Amino acid sequence: MSNKPSYDVVGIGNAIVDALAPTGDDVLARLQLNKGSMTLIDESSSARIYAEMGPATISSGGSAANTMVGLASLGAKAAFIGKVKDDDSGRAFCHDIEKSGVAFSTPATATGPATARCLVLVTPDGERTMSTYLGACVHLGPDDIDEELIARTRIVYLEGYLWDPPQAKAAFRKAAEAAHRSGARVALTLSDAFCVDRYRDEFLGLIRGGAVDIVFANESELHALYQTADFGTAVAELKKEKALAFVTRSANGCLVVDHGEAESAPASAIDRLVDTTGAGDLFAAGALFGLSRGAPNVRAAAIGALAAAEVIQHFGARPQTSLADLLAQSGI
Amino acid sequence: MSNKPSYDVVGIGNAIVDALAPTGDDVLARLQLNKGSMTLIDESSSARIYAEMGPATISSGGSAANTMVGLASLGAKAAFIGKVKDDDSGRAFCHDIEKSGVAFSTPATATGPATARCLVLVTPDGERTMSTYLGACVHLGPDDIDEELIARTRIVYLEGYLWDPPQAKAAFRKAAEAAHRSGARVALTLSDAFCVDRYRDEFLGLIRGGAVDIVFANESELHALYQTADFGTAVAELKKEKALAFVTRSANGCLVVDHGEAESAPASAIDRLVDTTGAGDLFAAGALFGLSRGAPNVRAAAIGALAAAEVIQHFGARPQTSLADLLAQSGI
Repeated sequence: MSNKPSYDVVGIGNAIVDALAPTGDDVLARLQLNKGSMTLIDESSSARIYAEMGPATISSGGSAANTMVGLASLGAKAAFIGKVKDDDSGRAFCHDIEKSGVAFSTPATATGPATARCLVLVTPDGERTMSTYLGACVHLGPDDIDEELIARTRIVYLEGYLWDPPQAKAAFRKAAEAAHRSGARVALTLSDAFCVDRYRDEFLGLIRGGAVDIVFANESELHALYQTADFGTAVAELKKEKALAFVTRSANGCLVVDHGEAESAPASAIDRLVDTTGAGDLFAAGALFGLSRGAPNVRAAAIGALAAAEVIQHFGARPQTSLADLLAQSGI
Repeated sequence: MSNKPSYDVVGIGNAIVDALAPTGDDVLARLQLNKGSMTLIDESSSARIYAEMGPATISSGGSAANTMVGLASLGAKAAFIGKVKDDDSGRAFCHDIEKSGVAFSTPATATGPATARCLVLVTPDGERTMSTYLGACVHLGPDDIDEELIARTRIVYLEGYLWDPPQAKAAFRKAAEAAHRSGARVALTLSDAFCVDRYRDEFLGLIRGGAVDIVFANESELHALYQTADFGTAVAELKKEKALAFVTRSANGCLVVDHGEAESAPASAIDRLVDTTGAGDLFAAGALFGLSRGAPNVRAAAIGALAAAEVIQHFGARPQTSLADLLAQSGI
């Protein structure tokens, strides 16, 4: 076996199919959904919200899965671990991720809950509000972590959302430990401010205990992590952590904090904000691509910004054009 | 009962769910598909082509259904008649068309073939190439034509594709006759050049026999209808017909021929051609909207061009923004 890693990045996350609909703000209010956040729902709530949604487009999603597709579009070798059921949605998920050039071989469940579904309501300001029925994701467990695969990977990327399904946390820890045994780095996205609220102490423990080397967060997730509404206070706390962190700030670009040292990187220019779904996922894709190729942090952040800019200019969470081409044209 | 029609337009067509994927020209060549056309396929061919397709987005489609959704988006009262199965795709189709504001009450089949699926391959030049498995559409028949509904409608719109499923032709004729009994006009889209090749004599018979008052065609369909490669020759033939015809010419706008008199209308300006899927359907929506409101032919064509311009600037065959708002802003 060669010593050269076979994969730049392996992502582990919830395998989800999205139903996305442009939606008025009044619908969010009526459904009592927190704008911009992800809410976990059961199957009957999913049916109830779908019935209130407008015409919807169905496409594969899942935060870490979107990130792996972004990496493949940039030209990286990426793999994904996540759980679907062997139903129509699950088969579509498998088709889409494989055809995106991402290795995916987690066995589907034959029985039990359906493939996970995320209802994505996109308001006229481009903000997305998500309601997720986890379905078959609850069956992701440590047995699904292929340590052979992890051993051949430069970076293992984990989504904070994995703390929600009951056995995925153990899968997450197993993957992180296997990564460190083989010298790979472990990256974590904090996923969502409410998700941080649910698992704050555990996420801080992962960072402070050295289980996680690289952290992705947006401003509201960082605020939730350190329980402050003040960005300066949150950054001061972040600077104390022994980690590399990318804090995305929408149009204000990204703050990169590397073991106490902070640098800024600008956002990429866009023509029109259509739908922020996948913005954080694609930022992570670009940044991880840069890191896996040895780019300095700020250049990695610039690639992240480029990938995020592509995905927010159309509906849907995965790129619609070759990010490798965009990168080549960008001069980054 | 009021004498005022309840619907501006009722559309009758194949009820189809689209799977759309950006695709290289090499894939079309390998699959031996005719670029820009619609090919009928069986279920096993559908599975084979899907396996060759890239990551796909699933959304409701169907030519006349897309047109009715466009009409509703413009503010018209529209209804649709078409056949789905009561399966996941069929339920999604019902959800989407109803949530688009289109009345739809054709009963779904409980058994038999699945809801129709159209595989749409979009090449980098924005052209779409379609492969359609008709599925449950083969069960659309005269019993599905609600003559009460037709009697309350200004315009009945029929797609040429209805000649493909075996019983739909009879439904088509029943609807056209009911329309004329109540003083409504009947519009027909020629749908596709290969479809015209299959049913040329019947389509000419419908126009010349007076069953159809308004014809929509693009250049290649018009060429197929009159078996010529020369636009001037085709238009000279068209001028002999006792009908109103809209001939769409992509970026060259539209030629309107009304009982021998020809006028031109320009295309709407666009920023970037992304995907022509739905261009003809949405042109028809705008033109029918204009006609239903008594607009002169050229103004109706301008509204058609506006609606088509919206749909070709993103992936997918249905509008992603309010066409009524676009029209109000356009000054047309």
